Amino acid sequence: MEAPAQYSELKKRLSEIYDLYGASSVLGWDQATYMPPGGAAARARQLGTLSKLAQEKLTDPAIGKLLDELRSFENNLSRDSDEASLIRVTRRSYQIATLIPPALVEEISNHIAMAYQTWAKARPENNFVAVQDNLEKTLDYSRQYAESLRPLDSNYRHVMDPLIDLSDYGMQVETVQSVFTELRQALVPLVKAISESSVTDDACLYQSFPGDQQLAFAKEVIQKFGYDFQRGRQDPTHHPFATRFSAGDVRITTRVDDHHLGDGIFATFHESGHGMYEQGINVDFDATPLGGGTSAGIHESQSRTWENIVGRSRAFWEHYYAPLQALFPDQLKNVSLDTFYRAINKVEPSLVRVKADEVTYNLHIMVRFDFELALLEGKLAVKDLPEAWNARYQADLGITPSDYKDGVMQDVHWFAGLIGGAFQGYTLGNILGAQFYQTALKSHPEIPAEIGQGKFDTLYGWLRANIYQHGSKYNAPELIQRVTGGPLDVQPLVSYLYSKYGEIYGLNL
Amino acid sequence: MEAPAQYSELKKRLSEIYDLYGASSVLGWDQATYMPPGGAAARARQLGTLSKLAQEKLTDPAIGKLLDELRSFENNLSRDSDEASLIRVTRRSYQIATLIPPALVEEISNHIAMAYQTWAKARPENNFVAVQDNLEKTLDYSRQYAESLRPLDSNYRHVMDPLIDLSDYGMQVETVQSVFTELRQALVPLVKAISESSVTDDACLYQSFPGDQQLAFAKEVIQKFGYDFQRGRQDPTHHPFATRFSAGDVRITTRVDDHHLGDGIFATFHESGHGMYEQGINVDFDATPLGGGTSAGIHESQSRTWENIVGRSRAFWEHYYAPLQALFPDQLKNVSLDTFYRAINKVEPSLVRVKADEVTYNLHIMVRFDFELALLEGKLAVKDLPEAWNARYQADLGITPSDYKDGVMQDVHWFAGLIGGAFQGYTLGNILGAQFYQTALKSHPEIPAEIGQGKFDTLYGWLRANIYQHGSKYNAPELIQRVTGGPLDVQPLVSYLYSKYGEIYGLNL
Repeated sequence: MEAPAQYSELKKRLSEIYDLYGASSVLGWDQATYMPPGGAAARARQLGTLSKLAQEKLTDPAIGKLLDELRSFENNLSRDSDEASLIRVTRRSYQIATLIPPALVEEISNHIAMAYQTWAKARPENNFVAVQDNLEKTLDYSRQYAESLRPLDSNYRHVMDPLIDLSDYGMQVETVQSVFTELRQALVPLVKAISESSVTDDACLYQSFPGDQQLAFAKEVIQKFGYDFQRGRQDPTHHPFATRFSAGDVRITTRVDDHHLGDGIFATFHESGHGMYEQGINVDFDATPLGGGTSAGIHESQSRTWENIVGRSRAFWEHYYAPLQALFPDQLKNVSLDTFYRAINKVEPSLVRVKADEVTYNLHIMVRFDFELALLEGKLAVKDLPEAWNARYQADLGITPSDYKDGVMQDVHWFAGLIGGAFQGYTLGNILGAQFYQTALKSHPEIPAEIGQGKFDTLYGWLRANIYQHGSKYNAPELIQRVTGGPLDVQPLVSYLYSKYGEIYGLNL
Repeated sequence: MEAPAQYSELKKRLSEIYDLYGASSVLGWDQATYMPPGGAAARARQLGTLSKLAQEKLTDPAIGKLLDELRSFENNLSRDSDEASLIRVTRRSYQIATLIPPALVEEISNHIAMAYQTWAKARPENNFVAVQDNLEKTLDYSRQYAESLRPLDSNYRHVMDPLIDLSDYGMQVETVQSVFTELRQALVPLVKAISESSVTDDACLYQSFPGDQQLAFAKEVIQKFGYDFQRGRQDPTHHPFATRFSAGDVRITTRVDDHHLGDGIFATFHESGHGMYEQGINVDFDATPLGGGTSAGIHESQSRTWENIVGRSRAFWEHYYAPLQALFPDQLKNVSLDTFYRAINKVEPSLVRVKADEVTYNLHIMVRFDFELALLEGKLAVKDLPEAWNARYQADLGITPSDYKDGVMQDVHWFAGLIGGAFQGYTLGNILGAQFYQTALKSHPEIPAEIGQGKFDTLYGWLRANIYQHGSKYNAPELIQRVTGGPLDVQPLVSYLYSKYGEIYGLNL
């Protein structure tokens, strides 16, 4: 069936909207990489203007009319067709955009810009009082925002449900809680067993390792993974991220420490996973709502796959440790592969989420998720958050932050966005990464051996065919079902962690 | 008098438009510096969308209505006031924008994008035939564009007049021709006298001079000039340019050759002149039509002042040659200041405009200006252009290009924009640079001595107070009158060139 004129008209309008998003991404990338300090004020204003224009165009009633007129065309198509998917996903974007009052969008955007600046200044000063009022206001905005999205789904039961649904479609407070509880029950005994076992020494990582050389190594590896530098690049920043300007320009950013081997390398692997996902999306989806990762959890699953499942595996380093040693001969000549492998997989409860190991990382996320919920429900007051945070860290990780900087103020999320929906995606990503990888191994049991030879084509090809290419055509539950034949499942992650860390720490589990 | 509500409304609308321009500039800068090849197609489309949206907003009849309603407010203000200037300059922008049919704008923009790609590929292949049809079409579009602007001024007599007026307000074919004739009459005997005098040897510049070190040197100098790196930065590119994102973010780009001392340094000085002009504009003019340089010629006068009048002066190098020698001790230890000074000021008729010396440079511009005119008037056919080009170079500069690459196809202008109005600004800039500098010396005869001590505050301060800060508040003729007390005058440039090169070449003029 030939597409009606309304379909072309819709795509034309979407292209304008996504050109504005693409432009915003360029401005945001520049802001985080190269912008001189003097550019900050105007840049915030320019980003605000682009966002406002895109929002106006997306909520134009003409879009709603086109979507209505396209109903019969859509109904005659297979749900799996690109055209039906485009219409369906656009309808949801339109619905979300029209539900939120423009004045609220603008108020929130102004508030967040200011709140972020305040946090950026207050955090190094360890000054929670300075951010407290902003946080109260952010909380209030988060509730209003969530409330305005309530019509999206009659099954929402909790104030946080719409916020979770927005980043991780199909998940709600109760489903996340059930998943987290199951994972927690497996993690607590694992962490306990590890902490009672012999200590791993990672001193070998704390020497002088010139950042340029670390990044050159990482760059070579991610090209082997499948990241395409003809359609991307890597630049330095403070808080690494990946960003898509178009199908042909998906960039990653990184940060490296000259006195620590690893963070810069693993951050590069991580962002390359996000980048390969975006680079692998069907190019026909460019400048439409299909041309992007489908959910926060699915996105994170891809970064975690390349960072951890591949990048921190013994097989990977069986191939790559020799080149790394050759790069840093003085520093690593007396460090065996086994010592190095244990060092980069050292498990130790710590204060800072972004520096946490694979095992304890998810405990950090659970803390944040529970606090988001308690704050939104009004069960915890903002002023009581620091004390609650410290108590919870003591209870869950056995350590108490000595300051706010690396405690309650460590993450940018609540200070640069809404409260709620921000954190669950990280742990969902860890879960899904393991689940997808387990599925890939069923069809391709040769993958680990290939990784041991520095070959990644089979894994990359499988991920691209099964996940990347689809962009947002399938929502997260659909995609998980399609790929794995079942719903989200915690067990692959649990097996992966038990097996890997049982071996490293010689545990009897 | 308090500004009426319409004035704030106008400023609000202008801010949106200029945010779109600012965003376009960021995308253009990235395109020319860091964008990977894969990003090209979508970037062109994104730039097209931003430009279209800005054009729609600028031609919104609501702007015309506001401008009408602001007449009486404007008439009660002094013409020199910021408010009256904003209204006046906006009215002209609005008038220009509304005169050009949107369909023509879009056609031209699409054509140019394609024509540029074709040229970029055909030039290294020395293939004029490949660009010929595009050039015909560009010529046709240039005529249509100029024709649509005819209502701007009843004094236009020539098809090229509106195109010149757009970049160099107040100038027309006849005024440019009269200026160029006067300059040419002075240049021809000077070039002849130089070519008959002793030859200058610039071999000392052709050694290994690591680009990083050259740029580090240039960076230190331009900071002394007054370029502010807190509100700007410098990045590598193929064709150096300066670009403004906002009052607080004005960037320059440069290119450097590891095997030639000078090009990278003087290109940096040049772009810093453009950059200081934009950085020096009253910050209150940001995101309005006043917040930019007022004409192509005035802009170029500032780049030429710092590149040539300051940067290639003997006084400058009396201070800076020692640090340069210290940077390149092996390469320069046997090169005296006098030898170096002569080398960087070597006059020699050559094929490539951008590599031309101060004296012959303007002859290159005159060639191009005359050809633009002949093409637009239909007195020269595109197919005959290469032959005419070569003949003219032989006649004017005494050399014939051996290829198109460094002949008729050397400049990007006709392949990335309209034909007409593109070139005269460069020579007007040289003229105005000398004229402004002569005026500055009248108030501050100490300037050359200060330059000899590596001090630039007096000159920078004078330029900022008299030129930079005004942005586009005054048009070019008004500004020239205000600064110098008279109209544009060729004689200061002639005196400057005769005096400087008479001394270098020991001429009896």
